[in-house]
Amino acid sequence: MTGPKRPKETMGKVGEFGFIERIRKTLKEDGSSVVLGVGDDAAILRPTAGQELIFTTDMLVEGKHFDLKTITPWQLGAKTMAVNVSDCAAMGAKPTAVVVSLGVPKDFPVKDLEAFYDGMKGWGESYGARIVGGDTVGSDQFVVNVALIGEVEKGRALRRSGAKAGEALFVTGTLGDSAAGLHSLQHPDPKGKDAATLLVKRHLTPTPRFNVGRYLSSKRLASSAIDVSDGLSSEIHHLCEGSGIGAEIHEEALPLSDSLLHYCEAKDLDPLGFALDGGEDYELLFTVPLTRISEAVRNLPGETGTSVRSIGRMVPKAKGVTLITRKGQRVPLKPKGFDHFSD
Amino acid sequence: MTGPKRPKETMGKVGEFGFIERIRKTLKEDGSSVVLGVGDDAAILRPTAGQELIFTTDMLVEGKHFDLKTITPWQLGAKTMAVNVSDCAAMGAKPTAVVVSLGVPKDFPVKDLEAFYDGMKGWGESYGARIVGGDTVGSDQFVVNVALIGEVEKGRALRRSGAKAGEALFVTGTLGDSAAGLHSLQHPDPKGKDAATLLVKRHLTPTPRFNVGRYLSSKRLASSAIDVSDGLSSEIHHLCEGSGIGAEIHEEALPLSDSLLHYCEAKDLDPLGFALDGGEDYELLFTVPLTRISEAVRNLPGETGTSVRSIGRMVPKAKGVTLITRKGQRVPLKPKGFDHFSD
Repeated sequence: MTGPKRPKETMGKVGEFGFIERIRKTLKEDGSSVVLGVGDDAAILRPTAGQELIFTTDMLVEGKHFDLKTITPWQLGAKTMAVNVSDCAAMGAKPTAVVVSLGVPKDFPVKDLEAFYDGMKGWGESYGARIVGGDTVGSDQFVVNVALIGEVEKGRALRRSGAKAGEALFVTGTLGDSAAGLHSLQHPDPKGKDAATLLVKRHLTPTPRFNVGRYLSSKRLASSAIDVSDGLSSEIHHLCEGSGIGAEIHEEALPLSDSLLHYCEAKDLDPLGFALDGGEDYELLFTVPLTRISEAVRNLPGETGTSVRSIGRMVPKAKGVTLITRKGQRVPLKPKGFDHFSD
Repeated sequence: MTGPKRPKETMGKVGEFGFIERIRKTLKEDGSSVVLGVGDDAAILRPTAGQELIFTTDMLVEGKHFDLKTITPWQLGAKTMAVNVSDCAAMGAKPTAVVVSLGVPKDFPVKDLEAFYDGMKGWGESYGARIVGGDTVGSDQFVVNVALIGEVEKGRALRRSGAKAGEALFVTGTLGDSAAGLHSLQHPDPKGKDAATLLVKRHLTPTPRFNVGRYLSSKRLASSAIDVSDGLSSEIHHLCEGSGIGAEIHEEALPLSDSLLHYCEAKDLDPLGFALDGGEDYELLFTVPLTRISEAVRNLPGETGTSVRSIGRMVPKAKGVTLITRKGQRVPLKPKGFDHFSD
């Protein structure tokens, strides 16, 4: 027996305050560091003594960063949180609280907005990130902004500026999967379909390397770190600029997943392009002093559940950023990561 | 002598990272609470011992919240900061750091974006709010999001939930000016033009009641507070819901500026509608226990440089929210403030 069909609820019908009231009921303070959550002019937080705060923000725009035809609202909520937790992980910090702003078209279904919040909340809480406030406004495109606060032991934050020539360059996990997943969403094709499943999953629900960031910070193991959001070829330049040095990366050391290799083989694509220039991997790129390389290689996988790979080393600034190919050629590595304004 | 005309720089030409580099140079750490500002995966802040944090966010969308035909980029930057500082003021807190996300159309002039930052920076620094990070992405509409962290002495934050029946209801400054200023921008007309000048100024560059919020918090003078961003008739309901009580407001006590009265007289409009339902006043609405009313009236103007007016009192919840008209009639006061999703 089915009841009468309910008219579809849209934001235009439920309204800003009606929606806030619904969301508010799902977000309760737990008496920890959150003194007051959603529902006032601002949230109130109690910082932990002796910790420094990290503060970061990310904006995602429909049609630029995501396509609601290929990502569900729940996945988008989870991914939005993951992107911010990844920034936090790259600082070696533990997320504590986020505020979420949404620009929402009037005809946007309320159930999709609730699913988005469920994704954010569920994914965020597994890393300790609580939603404590936000803003919901009308807009033509669906726009999401998250700002995140995290905590890190005083002086222990991982920066982009600490790397020194001679140190080893490491990366977590595998590179290029997310961009290949996006490619397969944009070029649907039976060829390479099995391999694409995992790549799409990596694209839609990335895993921030939270455990690795915390381990590197707590053991003072990394001299610098950055997360790979815009592609390795861009991020290595950011790290080198931050530290005032150069880098050499070995093509044959780049960690590529079996899925990426199978997908590229089936579709006759070059995996190297995805690995170097593909964005949204959300892996961590970090540098380790020579005396501690064996410690990093030995301990990180077991302690963090994440594979790590040494892909090169840091060199003096004058040497620039170089890729050493499989044939031993040295070619300058240009930043080709995603620029939202490039033509 | 004029040089050759330079091609207009747009975000499409300068690019995300080029723009970030320009902005970064204008934002230096001052060694206070900002350990690390713009340019890493996140900013690093050092919280003051014994303080609680407040955390808030606001999103502004072109065509919904502002029209770049009637507000300059500099003014928009200043207003964006003012809106967030106002939330902070309503908590009795002192702003410390903000992160700014911008969704920017590709053809947006870079000089306008720089003017926007100048407005934010200049206006923000006068309240102690430093820009420590952000995100710049492409979008079809110009979208601005600011997230703000502030500090307040432990347990001293002003909430919406502390008001009690019998207490006096106060408001700072004057009400309805901003909405009348917006009206005059949308209905250009020589009539009432002189009066409109000040109203437009109030609309474009509102002054957050920072000093009042800090004074109320430091003296424990207010039992509750909220900022009037969506219009008095909405905000009084938020305050009453937060505190589980009702309120009576006297029409004749509402503080109306001479400019508002002149403008409405010249254009045959009702000032009451602007004062009750007009948004973006960014005044503070707060409650004061009976025993401290004279202290509030006597000290606030001199100590904070801001006029305050008692406009009514809080009553038991069952009595609801009532407006007592000039003729002594009691009418229910319905929330009619701005809902971005209403038709």
